[in-house]
Amino acid sequence: MNTAATPSIVPRPAPQPLLDALAARFGAQCSTALAVREQHGRDESPFDAPPPAAVVFCESTQDVADAVKLCAAHDYPVIAWGAGSSLEGQLLAVRGGVVLDLTRMNRVLDIATGDLLATVQAGVTRKQLNDELRHTGLFFPIDPGADATLGGMTATRASGTNAVRYGTMRENVLALTVVLADGRVLRTGTRARKSSAGYDLTRLFVGSEGTLGIITEITLRLYPQPEAVAAAICSFPDVASAVDCTIAIMQSGVPIARCELMDANAVRAVNAHDHLGLPESPLLLMEFHGSPSGVREQAQTVQALAQDFRGSDFAWADTPEERSRLWAARHHAYLSALQTKPGCRCVTTDTCVPISKLAQSINATVDEAQAAGLPYFIVGHVGDGNYHIGYLIDPAKPEERELAERLNAQLVRRALALGGTCSGEHGIGLHKQDFLREEVGDDAIDLMRAIKHALDPRGLFNPGKIFV
Amino acid sequence: MNTAATPSIVPRPAPQPLLDALAARFGAQCSTALAVREQHGRDESPFDAPPPAAVVFCESTQDVADAVKLCAAHDYPVIAWGAGSSLEGQLLAVRGGVVLDLTRMNRVLDIATGDLLATVQAGVTRKQLNDELRHTGLFFPIDPGADATLGGMTATRASGTNAVRYGTMRENVLALTVVLADGRVLRTGTRARKSSAGYDLTRLFVGSEGTLGIITEITLRLYPQPEAVAAAICSFPDVASAVDCTIAIMQSGVPIARCELMDANAVRAVNAHDHLGLPESPLLLMEFHGSPSGVREQAQTVQALAQDFRGSDFAWADTPEERSRLWAARHHAYLSALQTKPGCRCVTTDTCVPISKLAQSINATVDEAQAAGLPYFIVGHVGDGNYHIGYLIDPAKPEERELAERLNAQLVRRALALGGTCSGEHGIGLHKQDFLREEVGDDAIDLMRAIKHALDPRGLFNPGKIFV
Repeated sequence: MNTAATPSIVPRPAPQPLLDALAARFGAQCSTALAVREQHGRDESPFDAPPPAAVVFCESTQDVADAVKLCAAHDYPVIAWGAGSSLEGQLLAVRGGVVLDLTRMNRVLDIATGDLLATVQAGVTRKQLNDELRHTGLFFPIDPGADATLGGMTATRASGTNAVRYGTMRENVLALTVVLADGRVLRTGTRARKSSAGYDLTRLFVGSEGTLGIITEITLRLYPQPEAVAAAICSFPDVASAVDCTIAIMQSGVPIARCELMDANAVRAVNAHDHLGLPESPLLLMEFHGSPSGVREQAQTVQALAQDFRGSDFAWADTPEERSRLWAARHHAYLSALQTKPGCRCVTTDTCVPISKLAQSINATVDEAQAAGLPYFIVGHVGDGNYHIGYLIDPAKPEERELAERLNAQLVRRALALGGTCSGEHGIGLHKQDFLREEVGDDAIDLMRAIKHALDPRGLFNPGKIFV
Repeated sequence: MNTAATPSIVPRPAPQPLLDALAARFGAQCSTALAVREQHGRDESPFDAPPPAAVVFCESTQDVADAVKLCAAHDYPVIAWGAGSSLEGQLLAVRGGVVLDLTRMNRVLDIATGDLLATVQAGVTRKQLNDELRHTGLFFPIDPGADATLGGMTATRASGTNAVRYGTMRENVLALTVVLADGRVLRTGTRARKSSAGYDLTRLFVGSEGTLGIITEITLRLYPQPEAVAAAICSFPDVASAVDCTIAIMQSGVPIARCELMDANAVRAVNAHDHLGLPESPLLLMEFHGSPSGVREQAQTVQALAQDFRGSDFAWADTPEERSRLWAARHHAYLSALQTKPGCRCVTTDTCVPISKLAQSINATVDEAQAAGLPYFIVGHVGDGNYHIGYLIDPAKPEERELAERLNAQLVRRALALGGTCSGEHGIGLHKQDFLREEVGDDAIDLMRAIKHALDPRGLFNPGKIFV
């Protein structure tokens, strides 16, 4: 079992005629400068790989199609790039490649308030979209930790803190524009809320991590900003009590909008990073959306449940400013934790289990982490059964990475045995390929490979990712 | 343009050695009696086709796998069968075939109340599942008009009256067991609520209409029965006012659970069939789910909106019995309408458009239907932008079918021009293949064909459906 602590790298320089052709077509939009390539040769995963051969700053779907055609003509890999915030090595040029940086494709093309949908270019970030939506009374709920691009979020089937109420990218992408391996431009889906017209090509590209096509435009579902919002935190004596409380909330049917866990380590890190004074014990951070009376009712139900599970210090974030500070802190947990151990990198886990197995899953993970003695922190979208333990490792000490990977392997195997998945929202990338095979089996990998071959017969799109 | 008023039929008798092998393996579970074959040679579409060569009553996934292997060994088509309630000709043996009747696979295998999910065999019907759930406090919301099997509902990406709140089969299937074209048994998905582990094979089979594999088991999301439920009807002077009111409700963000339109023709038909006294004008049938005060609040908001759009006779179905009667009547609309013209068949349409275009879409459809002079009725899941107009035709008069198909073609083209889809929930089958191509384009059809070829290289699964 290779847990991908060191990804398999097959360096492959770009053919000079391809670089010449890209320079001719793209001029200053194409760079082979080492600094630019290095910037595009590393994501948020703990892996190292050689930088890509070139970076093309695409400004339109036509740019993407032309770049793909040129790479195809020279049989050379193509990797799409958004915010560079992948955690599982999705962006690394482990088989060589030209990176298509889509961040200049950052226009919100259409906001249809009456239909509760928006169409964006792939390089628009989630925060940018919500800034542009602010005055429409609508919002887009999916919020991974990073201010990721919506193209990247689509490609990794991302979710975040609101998924428990609003679903993930899987449920919230209606239609796509995709550049195929031969440079053709495909539209999938329509602006209708539902459809049973043929195979679900949209859902096939959502989560395909750049291996089936390059997503250039996305039509997304929007939601009315709730009339009332209330956020609350509640302390628990231990992680187990917080998780048991979450299970009870979910089983009660309360339509909670966010239900997030931070362990004491994560709370300490964000307190330091964001200058907050949150109680340094396991916390649930919750949010309720609805009418004023509906929100009040939900909060009362949850407050009563929390007491049953020894929750205390139930505190409200009453103003929009306080709420923003709280959720910003939650989103900073990953970066805050990195700063608690200067120079460290983070090995992140991402299992998701059926909610009834969540306590069992987290408790064993905490026990193992404490026994191992590596610094760690836990944050979790626990309403979904999805949590992350981050092990902070010294990149100069291979034994620390090895230990973290061993802990990761134990917790993934436990999640699979409990009916869960190795990845709730970060994707497979380089890091979880063996776990994916354990989870879905050889027949499913064969089928994924057959689909990959049908769409990308020469394997040009992001080779070496998801499965090899 | 062939609007499939007469499907292309390529009769193909079964090789005798295949029939012998099926008889040897399945004994009395396999029938070649004409009556049985004819029963399995017709669905609810207006099309005629020759009956299948044989019917195998499968009792397990192993039975399905063995039958598929035998058919594959003789290169002969396989068609999965549930309740036989498809409306678009999905079940017809237009290229010959052995029908695998899955109705004996009718066990609910597992109800996990704590995880809000159930695993069922493909032949379990939606009503059976809800009967078995009754005492758990949970329910499964998806409710097409017929008491369809959950396997058939998965295969056509069905929805129904609750989709506006709870989503369609696309959102509510977590995992599948599928028999592949070579007889291997594949598991897709897990029991976790979300996952970003590899390609979304589950969503690929949902809506594939039996052309990629035979679904034998399904893991479904369940929902807590709402604490309070209120249903109401409201009359409108014309269809346009009812539709405009629906648009306003959706844009208000009220989490309405059901928002259904019946035109005066549909109301007259169900009044006669179900002995009801509903006001014979365009009606909205609505349902609200939540806490008692939440339901009251939603209902007040909607009642106020209805007044703005000249809604009147706002009436409550207060008891569970009254509500059941109301929704049973709604579900009987199709059969009730058939009975208003003895011996008729129904050409059904199924477009879904962005909600802001719904009034424009329905108004033009009503005008065209009235001008054409064919009897018709309209029912619609208008909260989703999805509605059905049924044209009642005399099967002995080809000119009536031709006229209905012409009206259908007009309304589909209008829906596509408005950003909608040719099929909201019934699928493509035989009937909408040309419309599918118009909707998605040649490149998308090529891609679907490439996927079909990757999974079913010899084209054994339900040939002639979705695309040819």
